[in-house]
Amino acid sequence: MKLYDYFRSSAAYRVRIALNLKGIVPDERTFVHLRMGNQRAQDYLALNPQGLVPALALDEGAVLTQSLAIVEYLDETHREPPLLPHDPVGRARVRAIALSIACEIHPLNNLRVLNYLIGTLGVSREQKDGWYRYWIDVGFEALEKTLARDSATGRFCHGDTPTLADICLVPQMANARRFEIDLSPYPTLIRIESACNALPAFAEAAPARQPDAE
Amino acid sequence: MKLYDYFRSSAAYRVRIALNLKGIVPDERTFVHLRMGNQRAQDYLALNPQGLVPALALDEGAVLTQSLAIVEYLDETHREPPLLPHDPVGRARVRAIALSIACEIHPLNNLRVLNYLIGTLGVSREQKDGWYRYWIDVGFEALEKTLARDSATGRFCHGDTPTLADICLVPQMANARRFEIDLSPYPTLIRIESACNALPAFAEAAPARQPDAE
Repeated sequence: MKLYDYFRSSAAYRVRIALNLKGIVPDERTFVHLRMGNQRAQDYLALNPQGLVPALALDEGAVLTQSLAIVEYLDETHREPPLLPHDPVGRARVRAIALSIACEIHPLNNLRVLNYLIGTLGVSREQKDGWYRYWIDVGFEALEKTLARDSATGRFCHGDTPTLADICLVPQMANARRFEIDLSPYPTLIRIESACNALPAFAEAAPARQPDAE
Repeated sequence: MKLYDYFRSSAAYRVRIALNLKGIVPDERTFVHLRMGNQRAQDYLALNPQGLVPALALDEGAVLTQSLAIVEYLDETHREPPLLPHDPVGRARVRAIALSIACEIHPLNNLRVLNYLIGTLGVSREQKDGWYRYWIDVGFEALEKTLARDSATGRFCHGDTPTLADICLVPQMANARRFEIDLSPYPTLIRIESACNALPAFAEAAPARQPDAE
Protein backbone atom coordinates (compact mmCIF):
# COMPACT_ATOMS: atom_id res chain seq x y z
CA MET A 1 0.00 0.00 0.00
CA LYS A 2 0.98 3.59 -0.62
CA LEU A 3 0.19 6.44 1.77
CA TYR A 4 -0.33 10.01 0.56
CA ASP A 5 0.73 12.01 3.55
CA TYR A 6 1.60 15.51 4.79
CA PHE A 7 3.37 16.03 8.09
CA ARG A 8 1.07 18.79 9.34
CA SER A 9 -2.28 17.32 8.24
CA SER A 10 -4.12 16.11 11.34
CA ALA A 11 -6.14 13.72 9.23
CA ALA A 12 -2.94 12.12 7.90
CA TYR A 13 -1.55 12.09 11.46
CA ARG A 14 -4.56 9.95 12.51
CA VAL A 15 -3.79 7.41 9.81
CA ARG A 16 -0.09 7.35 10.73
CA ILE A 17 -1.01 6.52 14.34
CA ALA A 18 -3.38 3.75 13.23
CA LEU A 19 -0.77 2.24 10.91
CA ASN A 20 1.80 2.30 13.74
CA LEU A 21 -0.62 0.74 16.23
CA LYS A 22 -1.34 -2.04 13.75
CA GLY A 23 2.34 -2.47 12.92
CA ILE A 24 1.74 -1.79 9.22
CA VAL A 25 4.49 -0.13 7.21
CA PRO A 26 3.25 1.21 3.85
CA ASP A 27 5.47 0.17 0.94
CA GLU A 28 5.65 3.76 -0.14
CA ARG A 29 4.85 7.23 1.17
CA THR A 30 4.30 10.29 -0.98
CA PHE A 31 4.22 13.70 0.62
CA VAL A 32 1.61 16.09 -0.74
CA HIS A 33 2.68 19.59 0.25
CA LEU A 34 -0.59 21.28 1.22
CA ARG A 35 0.79 24.78 1.73
CA MET A 36 2.30 24.64 -1.75
CA GLY A 37 -1.09 23.51 -3.12
CA ASN A 38 0.11 20.14 -4.41
CA GLN A 39 -3.23 18.59 -3.42
CA ARG A 40 -4.75 20.51 -6.33
CA ALA A 41 -2.29 19.13 -8.91
CA GLN A 42 -4.05 17.23 -11.71
CA ASP A 43 -2.40 13.90 -10.94
CA TYR A 44 -3.42 14.07 -7.30
CA LEU A 45 -6.99 15.13 -8.12
CA ALA A 46 -7.21 12.18 -10.52
CA LEU A 47 -6.41 9.97 -7.56
CA ASN A 48 -8.55 11.80 -4.99
CA PRO A 49 -11.05 14.30 -6.45
CA GLN A 50 -11.50 15.79 -2.98
CA GLY A 51 -7.97 17.17 -3.09
CA LEU A 52 -7.38 16.27 0.54
CA VAL A 53 -4.85 14.12 2.34
CA PRO A 54 -4.54 11.42 3.44
CA ALA A 55 -5.27 8.85 0.76
CA LEU A 56 -4.28 5.20 0.92
CA ALA A 57 -3.75 3.39 -2.37
CA LEU A 58 -4.15 -0.37 -2.00
CA ASP A 59 -2.18 -2.90 -4.02
CA GLU A 60 -5.47 -4.09 -5.57
CA GLY A 61 -5.99 -0.64 -7.08
CA ALA A 62 -8.59 0.97 -4.81
CA VAL A 63 -7.75 4.38 -3.37
CA LEU A 64 -9.20 4.95 0.10
CA THR A 65 -9.92 8.48 1.31
CA GLN A 66 -11.20 10.14 4.49
CA SER A 67 -9.07 9.34 7.52
CA LEU A 68 -11.83 7.78 9.64
CA ALA A 69 -12.88 5.48 6.80
CA ILE A 70 -9.23 4.48 6.35
CA VAL A 71 -8.77 3.75 10.05
CA GLU A 72 -11.94 1.63 10.11
CA TYR A 73 -10.66 -0.24 7.04
CA LEU A 74 -7.33 -0.92 8.74
CA ASP A 75 -9.19 -2.10 11.82
CA GLU A 76 -11.40 -4.46 9.81
CA THR A 77 -8.52 -5.95 7.82
CA HIS A 78 -5.92 -6.11 10.62
CA ARG A 79 -7.75 -7.17 13.75
CA GLU A 80 -4.97 -6.73 16.35
CA PRO A 81 -4.88 -4.60 18.37
CA PRO A 82 -8.55 -3.58 17.96
CA LEU A 83 -9.16 0.15 17.62
CA LEU A 84 -12.82 -0.14 18.58
CA PRO A 85 -14.33 -1.98 21.56
CA HIS A 86 -16.42 -5.11 20.95
CA ASP A 87 -19.78 -3.99 22.34
CA PRO A 88 -22.01 -1.83 20.11
CA VAL A 89 -22.61 0.83 22.79
CA GLY A 90 -18.86 1.14 23.39
CA ARG A 91 -18.23 1.32 19.66
CA ALA A 92 -20.83 4.08 19.36
CA ARG A 93 -19.18 5.97 22.22
CA VAL A 94 -15.72 5.75 20.65
CA ARG A 95 -17.01 6.76 17.23
CA ALA A 96 -18.96 9.67 18.72
CA ILE A 97 -15.83 11.00 20.46
CA ALA A 98 -13.85 10.64 17.23
CA LEU A 99 -16.60 12.36 15.22
CA SER A 100 -16.96 15.16 17.77
CA ILE A 101 -13.39 16.06 16.80
CA ALA A 102 -13.44 15.06 13.13
CA CYS A 103 -16.79 16.76 12.37
CA GLU A 104 -17.16 19.54 14.92
CA ILE A 105 -13.64 20.92 15.36
CA HIS A 106 -11.23 19.90 12.64
CA PRO A 107 -13.20 20.88 9.46
CA LEU A 108 -13.65 24.42 10.74
CA ASN A 109 -9.92 24.89 11.19
CA ASN A 110 -8.79 23.30 7.97
CA LEU A 111 -6.28 25.22 5.86
CA ARG A 112 -8.76 25.83 3.04
CA VAL A 113 -11.34 27.23 5.45
CA LEU A 114 -8.80 29.60 7.02
CA ASN A 115 -7.77 30.66 3.51
CA TYR A 116 -11.41 31.44 2.67
CA LEU A 117 -11.83 33.49 5.85
CA ILE A 118 -8.81 35.62 5.02
CA GLY A 119 -8.87 35.61 1.22
CA THR A 120 -12.60 35.83 0.48
CA LEU A 121 -14.17 37.25 3.63
CA GLY A 122 -11.22 39.50 4.38
CA VAL A 123 -11.13 38.84 8.11
CA SER A 124 -8.04 39.95 10.04
CA ARG A 125 -5.36 37.63 11.34
CA GLU A 126 -6.67 38.22 14.88
CA GLN A 127 -10.20 37.28 13.84
CA LYS A 128 -8.91 34.18 12.07
CA ASP A 129 -6.97 33.14 15.18
CA GLY A 130 -10.03 33.87 17.31
CA TRP A 131 -12.13 31.62 15.08
CA TYR A 132 -9.53 28.85 15.34
CA ARG A 133 -9.43 29.04 19.13
CA TYR A 134 -13.21 29.36 19.46
CA TRP A 135 -14.03 26.07 17.74
CA ILE A 136 -11.34 24.18 19.64
CA ASP A 137 -12.65 25.57 22.94
CA VAL A 138 -16.28 24.77 22.13
CA GLY A 139 -15.36 21.24 21.11
CA PHE A 140 -12.88 20.56 23.92
CA GLU A 141 -15.22 21.91 26.59
CA ALA A 142 -17.89 19.38 25.62
CA LEU A 143 -15.34 16.61 25.23
CA GLU A 144 -13.76 17.28 28.63
CA LYS A 145 -17.21 17.05 30.25
CA THR A 146 -18.05 13.87 28.35
CA LEU A 147 -14.78 12.16 29.27
CA ALA A 148 -14.47 13.40 32.87
CA ARG A 149 -17.92 12.26 33.97
CA ASP A 150 -18.06 8.85 32.35
CA SER A 151 -16.72 5.70 34.00
CA ALA A 152 -16.08 4.25 30.53
CA THR A 153 -13.13 6.65 30.30
CA GLY A 154 -9.96 4.94 31.45
CA ARG A 155 -6.30 5.49 30.88
CA PHE A 156 -7.41 6.36 27.34
CA CYS A 157 -10.66 7.86 26.01
CA HIS A 158 -12.34 4.47 26.29
CA GLY A 159 -10.87 2.00 28.72
CA ASP A 160 -7.19 1.20 29.00
CA THR A 161 -6.21 0.65 25.39
CA PRO A 162 -6.04 3.23 22.62
CA THR A 163 -8.96 3.50 20.20
CA LEU A 164 -10.14 5.56 17.26
CA ALA A 165 -11.09 8.26 19.78
CA ASP A 166 -7.48 8.71 20.95
CA ILE A 167 -6.32 8.61 17.35
CA CYS A 168 -8.45 11.71 16.73
CA LEU A 169 -7.73 13.42 20.05
CA VAL A 170 -3.93 13.51 19.88
CA PRO A 171 -3.61 15.35 16.52
CA GLN A 172 -6.26 17.85 17.62
CA MET A 173 -4.34 18.48 20.84
CA ALA A 174 -1.19 19.02 18.78
CA ASN A 175 -3.02 21.66 16.72
CA ALA A 176 -4.24 23.35 19.89
CA ARG A 177 -0.70 23.44 21.26
CA ARG A 178 0.65 24.85 18.03
CA PHE A 179 -1.86 27.69 18.34
CA GLU A 180 -0.86 28.14 22.00
CA ILE A 181 -4.36 27.56 23.27
CA ASP A 182 -4.70 27.47 27.07
CA LEU A 183 -5.36 23.79 27.74
CA SER A 184 -5.63 24.07 31.54
CA PRO A 185 -9.48 23.77 31.44
CA TYR A 186 -9.07 20.29 29.90
CA PRO A 187 -7.15 18.17 32.43
CA THR A 188 -8.67 14.90 31.23
CA LEU A 189 -7.68 15.61 27.64
CA ILE A 190 -4.13 16.44 28.76
CA ARG A 191 -3.91 13.28 30.84
CA ILE A 192 -5.07 11.08 27.96
CA GLU A 193 -2.80 12.86 25.49
CA SER A 194 0.19 12.08 27.78
CA ALA A 195 -0.80 8.43 28.04
CA CYS A 196 -1.00 8.25 24.24
CA ASN A 197 2.25 10.01 23.55
CA ALA A 198 4.04 7.65 25.92
CA LEU A 199 3.39 4.97 23.29
CA PRO A 200 5.83 4.82 20.36
CA ALA A 201 2.92 4.38 17.90
CA PHE A 202 1.69 7.87 18.78
CA ALA A 203 5.05 9.53 19.36
CA GLU A 204 6.49 8.37 16.05
CA ALA A 205 3.46 9.65 14.13
CA ALA A 206 3.96 13.23 15.34
CA PRO A 207 4.39 15.91 12.65
CA ALA A 208 7.92 16.85 13.78
CA ARG A 209 9.06 13.24 13.35
CA GLN A 210 8.04 12.99 9.68
CA PRO A 211 10.53 13.14 6.79
CA ASP A 212 8.71 16.10 5.21
CA ALA A 213 8.60 18.17 8.43
CA GLU A 214 9.81 21.73 8.03
CA MET B 1 -35.34 4.17 22.81
CA LYS B 2 -35.91 7.89 22.72
CA LEU B 3 -34.82 10.14 19.84
CA TYR B 4 -33.91 13.78 20.35
CA ASP B 5 -34.78 15.29 17.02
CA TYR B 6 -35.27 18.55 15.13
CA PHE B 7 -37.00 18.62 11.78
CA ARG B 8 -34.44 20.83 10.06
CA SER B 9 -31.26 19.24 11.44
CA SER B 10 -29.61 17.27 8.65
CA ALA B 11 -27.83 15.12 11.20
CA ALA B 12 -31.17 14.17 12.78
CA TYR B 13 -32.59 13.60 9.26
CA ARG B 14 -29.85 10.99 8.68
CA VAL B 15 -30.86 9.11 11.81
CA ARG B 16 -34.55 9.29 10.89
CA ILE B 17 -33.77 7.69 7.51
CA ALA B 18 -31.72 4.94 9.15
CA LEU B 19 -34.45 4.19 11.68
CA ASN B 20 -37.02 3.99 8.87
CA LEU B 21 -34.82 1.72 6.74
CA LYS B 22 -34.38 -0.59 9.72
CA GLY B 23 -38.08 -0.44 10.58
CA ILE B 24 -37.37 0.85 14.09
CA VAL B 25 -39.89 3.16 15.70
CA PRO B 26 -38.49 4.97 18.77
CA ASP B 27 -40.78 4.76 21.80
CA GLU B 28 -40.53 8.50 22.17
CA ARG B 29 -39.37 11.53 20.22
CA THR B 30 -38.46 14.86 21.76
CA PHE B 31 -38.02 17.89 19.53
CA VAL B 32 -35.16 20.18 20.44
CA HIS B 33 -35.83 23.53 18.79
CA LEU B 34 -32.41 24.62 17.55
CA ARG B 35 -33.38 28.08 16.37
CA MET B 36 -34.87 28.79 19.80
CA GLY B 37 -31.62 27.57 21.39
CA ASN B 38 -33.18 24.67 23.29
CA GLN B 39 -30.04 22.58 22.65
CA ARG B 40 -28.28 24.86 25.16
CA ALA B 41 -30.85 24.27 27.92
CA GLN B 42 -29.30 22.77 31.06
CA ASP B 43 -31.30 19.55 30.92
CA TYR B 44 -30.31 18.90 27.31
CA LEU B 45 -26.64 19.70 27.97
CA ALA B 46 -26.72 17.27 30.89
CA LEU B 47 -27.78 14.64 28.37
CA ASN B 48 -25.50 15.70 25.53
CA PRO B 49 -22.72 18.12 26.53
CA GLN B 50 -22.15 18.88 22.84
CA GLY B 51 -25.50 20.64 22.65
CA LEU B 52 -26.22 19.12 19.25
CA VAL B 53 -28.99 16.95 17.87
CA PRO B 54 -29.61 14.14 17.31
CA ALA B 55 -29.14 12.07 20.41
CA LEU B 56 -30.52 8.60 20.96
CA ALA B 57 -31.20 7.51 24.53
CA LEU B 58 -31.24 3.74 24.89
CA ASP B 59 -33.45 1.88 27.34
CA GLU B 60 -30.31 0.63 29.10
CA GLY B 61 -29.38 4.23 29.94
CA ALA B 62 -26.65 5.09 27.44
CA VAL B 63 -27.11 8.23 25.37
CA LEU B 64 -25.66 7.97 21.87
CA THR B 65 -24.56 11.10 20.03
CA GLN B 66 -23.16 11.97 16.60
CA SER B 67 -25.37 10.84 13.74
CA LEU B 68 -22.83 8.62 11.98
CA ALA B 69 -22.02 6.81 15.22
CA ILE B 70 -25.74 6.32 15.83
CA VAL B 71 -26.32 4.94 12.32
CA GLU B 72 -23.40 2.52 12.70
CA TYR B 73 -24.86 1.42 16.06
CA LEU B 74 -28.26 0.81 14.49
CA ASP B 75 -26.57 -1.15 11.72
CA GLU B 76 -24.61 -3.30 14.17
CA THR B 77 -27.62 -4.06 16.36
CA HIS B 78 -30.25 -4.46 13.62
CA ARG B 79 -28.59 -6.29 10.75
CA GLU B 80 -31.31 -6.06 8.11
CA PRO B 81 -31.19 -4.36 5.72
CA PRO B 82 -27.43 -3.69 5.96
CA LEU B 83 -26.42 -0.05 5.59
CA LEU B 84 -22.81 -0.92 4.75
CA PRO B 85 -21.56 -3.45 2.19
CA HIS B 86 -19.82 -6.60 3.40
CA ASP B 87 -16.37 -6.16 1.86
CA PRO B 88 -13.89 -3.88 3.65
CA VAL B 89 -13.03 -1.86 0.52
CA GLY B 90 -16.71 -1.26 -0.18
CA ARG B 91 -17.29 -0.30 3.45
CA ALA B 92 -14.39 2.16 3.25
CA ARG B 93 -15.85 3.64 0.07
CA VAL B 94 -19.30 4.11 1.60
CA ARG B 95 -17.87 5.60 4.79
CA ALA B 96 -15.63 7.95 2.78
CA ILE B 97 -18.62 9.25 0.79
CA ALA B 98 -20.58 9.73 4.01
CA LEU B 99 -17.65 11.50 5.69
CA SER B 100 -17.01 13.70 2.66
CA ILE B 101 -20.44 15.16 3.39
CA ALA B 102 -20.47 14.89 7.19
CA CYS B 103 -16.94 16.32 7.64
CA GLU B 104 -16.30 18.50 4.61
CA ILE B 105 -19.66 20.14 3.88
CA HIS B 106 -22.13 19.94 6.72
CA PRO B 107 -20.04 21.27 9.67
CA LEU B 108 -19.21 24.43 7.75
CA ASN B 109 -22.87 25.22 7.18
CA ASN B 110 -24.13 24.41 10.64
CA LEU B 111 -26.39 26.96 12.30
CA ARG B 112 -23.84 27.83 14.98
CA VAL B 113 -21.14 28.45 12.38
CA LEU B 114 -23.41 30.74 10.36
CA ASN B 115 -24.28 32.56 13.58
CA TYR B 116 -20.57 33.07 14.30
CA LEU B 117 -19.96 34.43 10.79
CA ILE B 118 -22.72 36.99 11.17
CA GLY B 119 -22.63 37.70 14.90
CA THR B 120 -18.89 37.64 15.62
CA LEU B 121 -17.20 38.26 12.29
CA GLY B 122 -19.89 40.65 11.08
CA VAL B 123 -20.07 39.29 7.54
CA SER B 124 -23.04 40.35 5.40
CA ARG B 125 -25.97 38.13 4.54
CA GLU B 126 -24.64 37.88 0.97
CA GLN B 127 -21.23 36.78 2.21
CA LYS B 128 -22.84 34.23 4.53
CA ASP B 129 -24.92 32.83 1.66
CA GLY B 130 -21.81 32.79 -0.55
CA TRP B 131 -19.97 30.81 2.11
CA TYR B 132 -22.86 28.33 2.35
CA ARG B 133 -22.95 27.80 -1.41
CA TYR B 134 -19.18 27.63 -1.76
CA TRP B 135 -18.73 24.66 0.58
CA ILE B 136 -21.61 22.76 -0.95
CA ASP B 137 -20.21 23.33 -4.44
CA VAL B 138 -16.66 22.30 -3.46
CA GLY B 139 -17.97 19.16 -1.80
CA PHE B 140 -20.53 18.25 -4.45
CA GLU B 141 -18.08 18.79 -7.31
CA ALA B 142 -15.69 16.22 -5.84
CA LEU B 143 -18.53 13.87 -4.96
CA GLU B 144 -20.06 14.06 -8.44
CA LYS B 145 -16.68 13.13 -9.94
CA THR B 146 -16.18 10.30 -7.47
CA LEU B 147 -19.63 8.81 -8.08
CA ALA B 148 -19.84 9.38 -11.85
CA ARG B 149 -16.57 7.67 -12.68
CA ASP B 150 -16.78 4.64 -10.44
CA SER B 151 -18.48 1.41 -11.48
CA ALA B 152 -19.22 0.71 -7.79
CA THR B 153 -21.89 3.42 -8.06
CA GLY B 154 -25.24 1.88 -8.91
CA ARG B 155 -28.81 2.94 -8.49
CA PHE B 156 -27.58 4.36 -5.17
CA CYS B 157 -24.16 5.71 -4.10
CA HIS B 158 -22.87 2.16 -3.71
CA GLY B 159 -24.63 -0.56 -5.66
CA ASP B 160 -28.36 -0.98 -5.80
CA THR B 161 -29.36 -0.73 -2.17
CA PRO B 162 -29.22 2.34 0.06
CA THR B 163 -26.27 2.74 2.41
CA LEU B 164 -24.84 5.18 4.92
CA ALA B 165 -23.62 7.23 1.94
CA ASP B 166 -27.16 7.84 0.66
CA ILE B 167 -28.29 8.56 4.21
CA CYS B 168 -25.83 11.48 4.24
CA LEU B 169 -26.40 12.58 0.65
CA VAL B 170 -30.15 13.12 0.76
CA PRO B 171 -30.24 15.59 3.71
CA GLN B 172 -27.34 17.54 2.18
CA MET B 173 -29.22 17.74 -1.14
CA ALA B 174 -32.26 19.02 0.75
CA ASN B 175 -30.13 21.78 2.29
CA ALA B 176 -28.77 22.69 -1.12
CA ARG B 177 -32.29 22.90 -2.53
CA ARG B 178 -33.44 25.04 0.37
CA PHE B 179 -30.65 27.48 -0.46
CA GLU B 180 -31.62 27.33 -4.15
CA ILE B 181 -28.22 26.12 -5.24
CA ASP B 182 -27.91 25.27 -8.93
CA LEU B 183 -27.67 21.49 -8.89
CA SER B 184 -27.41 21.00 -12.67
CA PRO B 185 -23.63 20.32 -12.49
CA TYR B 186 -24.41 17.26 -10.32
CA PRO B 187 -26.58 14.91 -12.41
CA THR B 188 -25.41 11.79 -10.60
CA LEU B 189 -26.28 13.27 -7.21
CA ILE B 190 -29.73 14.26 -8.51
CA ARG B 191 -30.32 10.81 -9.96
CA ILE B 192 -29.39 9.09 -6.70
CA GLU B 193 -31.43 11.55 -4.64
CA SER B 194 -34.49 10.67 -6.75
CA ALA B 195 -33.93 6.96 -6.32
CA CYS B 196 -33.70 7.48 -2.56
CA ASN B 197 -36.74 9.69 -2.24
CA ALA B 198 -38.80 7.13 -4.13
CA LEU B 199 -38.41 4.95 -1.03
CA PRO B 200 -40.82 5.63 1.84
CA ALA B 201 -37.95 5.34 4.37
CA PHE B 202 -36.35 8.45 2.86
CA ALA B 203 -39.51 10.33 1.92
CA GLU B 204 -41.04 9.99 5.38
CA ALA B 205 -37.87 11.27 7.06
CA ALA B 206 -37.98 14.59 5.18
CA PRO B 207 -38.08 17.75 7.31
CA ALA B 208 -41.49 18.85 5.98
CA ARG B 209 -43.02 15.53 7.07
CA GLN B 210 -42.00 15.87 10.74
CA PRO B 211 -44.43 16.84 13.52
CA ASP B 212 -42.28 19.83 14.53
CA ALA B 213 -41.98 21.21 10.98
CA GLU B 214 -42.78 24.89 10.68
